[in-house]
Amino acid sequence: MSREILLNAFHMNCIGHQSHGLWTHPRDTARHYNTLSYWCDLAKTLERGLFDGLFLADVLGVYDVYGNSPDAALRNATQVPVNDPLMLVPAMAMVTEHLGFGVTCTLSYEPPYTFARRMTTLDHLTNGRIGWNIVTGYLNSAAQGMGQQGQESHDRRYEMAEDYMQVVYKLWEGSWEDGAVVEDRSAGIFADPAKVHRVHHDGPFYQLDAMHLCEPSPQRTPLLYQAGASPKGREFAARNAECLFIAATSPEWIKGYVADMRTRAVAAGRRPDDLKIFAICTPVVGATKAEAEAKLADYRCYVRTEGALAQLSGAMGVNLADYDLDTPVSALGNLETDATQTALETLARASGNPYSTIRQMAEFAGIGGRTPIFTGTGADVAEEIISWVDRTGVDGFNLAYAVMPETFEDFVNHVVPELQTRGRYKTAYTPGPLRTKLFGRARLADNHPAAAARTSLKI
Amino acid sequence: MSREILLNAFHMNCIGHQSHGLWTHPRDTARHYNTLSYWCDLAKTLERGLFDGLFLADVLGVYDVYGNSPDAALRNATQVPVNDPLMLVPAMAMVTEHLGFGVTCTLSYEPPYTFARRMTTLDHLTNGRIGWNIVTGYLNSAAQGMGQQGQESHDRRYEMAEDYMQVVYKLWEGSWEDGAVVEDRSAGIFADPAKVHRVHHDGPFYQLDAMHLCEPSPQRTPLLYQAGASPKGREFAARNAECLFIAATSPEWIKGYVADMRTRAVAAGRRPDDLKIFAICTPVVGATKAEAEAKLADYRCYVRTEGALAQLSGAMGVNLADYDLDTPVSALGNLETDATQTALETLARASGNPYSTIRQMAEFAGIGGRTPIFTGTGADVAEEIISWVDRTGVDGFNLAYAVMPETFEDFVNHVVPELQTRGRYKTAYTPGPLRTKLFGRARLADNHPAAAARTSLKI
Repeated sequence: MSREILLNAFHMNCIGHQSHGLWTHPRDTARHYNTLSYWCDLAKTLERGLFDGLFLADVLGVYDVYGNSPDAALRNATQVPVNDPLMLVPAMAMVTEHLGFGVTCTLSYEPPYTFARRMTTLDHLTNGRIGWNIVTGYLNSAAQGMGQQGQESHDRRYEMAEDYMQVVYKLWEGSWEDGAVVEDRSAGIFADPAKVHRVHHDGPFYQLDAMHLCEPSPQRTPLLYQAGASPKGREFAARNAECLFIAATSPEWIKGYVADMRTRAVAAGRRPDDLKIFAICTPVVGATKAEAEAKLADYRCYVRTEGALAQLSGAMGVNLADYDLDTPVSALGNLETDATQTALETLARASGNPYSTIRQMAEFAGIGGRTPIFTGTGADVAEEIISWVDRTGVDGFNLAYAVMPETFEDFVNHVVPELQTRGRYKTAYTPGPLRTKLFGRARLADNHPAAAARTSLKI
Repeated sequence: MSREILLNAFHMNCIGHQSHGLWTHPRDTARHYNTLSYWCDLAKTLERGLFDGLFLADVLGVYDVYGNSPDAALRNATQVPVNDPLMLVPAMAMVTEHLGFGVTCTLSYEPPYTFARRMTTLDHLTNGRIGWNIVTGYLNSAAQGMGQQGQESHDRRYEMAEDYMQVVYKLWEGSWEDGAVVEDRSAGIFADPAKVHRVHHDGPFYQLDAMHLCEPSPQRTPLLYQAGASPKGREFAARNAECLFIAATSPEWIKGYVADMRTRAVAAGRRPDDLKIFAICTPVVGATKAEAEAKLADYRCYVRTEGALAQLSGAMGVNLADYDLDTPVSALGNLETDATQTALETLARASGNPYSTIRQMAEFAGIGGRTPIFTGTGADVAEEIISWVDRTGVDGFNLAYAVMPETFEDFVNHVVPELQTRGRYKTAYTPGPLRTKLFGRARLADNHPAAAARTSLKI
C-alpha cells in the first residue's frame, strides 16, 4: 500500500478540548479561543502543512455527570465554556484557499430548515470546503437546555437522525435543479421557477413543506463525517457517511472496525473506498527521540485528572466520582441502561487500551484524550503514522493536540516533510471543493442515499 | 440640535434586497452575495466611511403570497435565494476594527439555548460589535419550513417573543457572574463554579434548565434592534429595544412615531434617549444635481415591478395579483384578519406615502424599497439627511442601496465629508464595543428589563 495519507487537525471552540489542564502550560494559547486571530493563525499553519481539514468537535451541554455537578468541568475549563463552531469557519475561509472545515453540529437541536440554509451558506462562502460531522448529542444537560427532561434514547436518536437526513438531502439535492439559476440579465430572469421544487416531507419525526432558500452550492450536501461505533451508529454511518472518525487506541481494534465498516458500506450499495476512515493520535515531536520524550514529560506535569474525569464521566454517562480510582475500567458494569455511543465504544475497545484502572484512564486521557501518543522525531512520528495506516487500513489521521499551537506547528514543520519524503503525503492541494480533493467529485456519488432526493421531487 | 448623526448600511444576504431588478444593472455586483470578498469589500468601504453598522435584514421563507406562488420572487431574485446572515459577520469582523453588525434573526425558529450561544460567540469574535434585530417572522412559508401549518398570530408572536427574551436575558446576563472567570494558571482553576449559575425558566412558551455555555462577552446581551410599528410591536420595542429602525416615507409620520416611542420608553421606566431611532432613505449621489437625477433615471430603467409586487404581497400579507394595478393602496381593505406588522405600517403611513395606486407603490418600491430617495450632490444629500433628523427627532438613518456597491461608495466618498464639514458626523470612531460607541457603556443599562436577570438567579 502506498496511498497518500489524509490529515485533519482536531480541535473545538473551547479552551480545554482533550488535553485536560494543558491550558495552564506556559506556551499554550488556547485561552484565546474566543478571538479570530487565534483561529486564523491556526488555519494558516494547517494550510501551510497541506492539511485536508480542520475538524471541529462540539458538545452542546456541559459535563455535569461527574459528581452530579458541572463544578469540575468549570474549574478545569473541560469543554466549557464552549462557543459555536460554525462561526469560526467564515473567518478562517478568508485567510485560506484549500483547507477544509469539518464541523460538528448536533442535529437533535437544529431545525433542519434553518440548518440546511446555514450549511449551504457556508458551502458558498468557502467555495465548497464545508463538512458536517453528524452527531445526535449525548448529554442530558443539552436536552435540558432545550426545555426537555432528558435526551431521547441512543437508538431513537439514530432513528431521528435518519429522518433528519432525508429532510436535508431533499433540501440540498432536490429543491433546486442544476439548471434552475438562469441569470439572464437582459430578460431580467434570475431563476427558472419550473426548476425550483418545494420539498414535501412527512416523516416520523420531521415534517416540512418548503423549498430550500438557497441556490445550489459547490458541494450541495456538505461532506459528511460521522463517528458512530455502536451497532446503530455503524449502520447509520455505512449508509450516510463519507468520512469516518474513530477514536481508538488499539490498531487491532481499528483494523477490525475498518474491515467491518467497508463491508457494511458494500452491503449498503456503496463501494469500500466510498468511506475515508480517520484514526486519531496525538503527536509529540522533538529534534531527537529524547527531546520529544522530555517534552511529553513536561506536558504531563500540567495534566489535571479532575478535568479528565469530568469529561470521561460525561462521555461515558457514568459518574466516575462514585468509584474508587483504582477500580478496573472493565468493572464499570453494564452501561446498557443509559448507554451512550461513547460508553459502548469504551467497553468495546477496553481490551486494547493502554490502561486498566479508572485512574490510569484519566491520566492517560489527560494528553490528547484517549488517543495513542506518537512521540519522537519527525521521522519517527511519520513512520508510526505510516505503520498504523498500513496495519489498519485507515485512510488517515485526525491529530489531537497537547499544546496549542505548538503541536500543530511541530507537526507541520517536522512530520509533514518526512511523510512527503516517503511518498505518503501530497506536495500540493488538488484544486476544487473539499469532496473533490478527497473523492475526485464535488457532489455526492450516485450510490449515496442522498442521490434519491435528486429526482424524486415534484413541484 | 446638533447631535452627530448615526448611520447604518442596510443590506441582506441575497441578490435582490429592496431594489427589484437592479441586480441586472451593469454596475451592480450583488450577484456575488455568496462570496466572502463581496462582503469584506463592503465592510471595508463602510468602515472607511465611519459607519456605525451594517444592518442585515433576513427573511426566513419565500415570498409566495403574490399569485399564490413563489414564481415571481424566483424570477426576480426577490429576497430569494437568501443565505444565512450570521455567517457573514466573522469574515467581515476580520477585515474591520470598529464597524458594528446588526443581524436579523427570527426568534420563532431559533431555540434560545443554541441561539444565545451563537450570539455570544459572535460578540466574542467581533470584540463586542454584534447587534440583534429581533423579529418574529411574517411569512407562512417559513412556518411551513419548520413543519407547522402556518405561523402564529401577530399578537401571539409578540407574547412568545417576550418569553423568549426572558430566557436569553437570563443566559446572557445572569448565568456567569463577572468574576466567574478566575483564570488562575498556577492553581489550575479557570472558572469559579460558585459564580456560574444554572438558569431555570418555565415560561408559557419556553422552558430551560441549563447554564449558559459561554463565558461573558464584551456586551453580554448583543445590542438590541427592533422595528415594530404595530401597537404590540411598539410596546415590545419600548421595553426591550435599544435601536429602532422605522421604514417610512413621511417625516410627519416619523416625527409622531419618534415622540410616541420616547414616551413609551419613559412609561417603561427608561429614558427617552435610551432609544436610538433610525429612519431610512436611499441616497443617489452625483457631481451635480442633474447628474444625480440622470443616475436615478438610469436606475429606474432596470426596475422590475413584478419583483416589487412579490415582495410587497409577502410583506403585507395580501395577494396583490388579485387587484387591478390602478387600485388605490388605501382601498386594500381591512388587513386586520391576517394582519402582519408590515401591513399595519403600510396602512398607518398611507397618507404620507408618495404614491396612491398599487402600480405606483410597486414602481416607487423598485428603488430601495418604500423609502424616500435623496437625490443630489453630496452636499444636497447631507442637507436632506440633516433636515430630516432635525425635523423628526430620529438619531440617524439606515441607508438602502440602489446599486451595489455604488450607492455606498458614492455616499462614503461624497456625503460623509459634507456631513463632517457641517459638524454632524464623527471624524473618528469611539473605541470599544458597539454599545459603547452608541450609548457610552458596553453593557445594558440598569433600567433595562434584562438587568433584572443579573441578580435574580440562584445556583
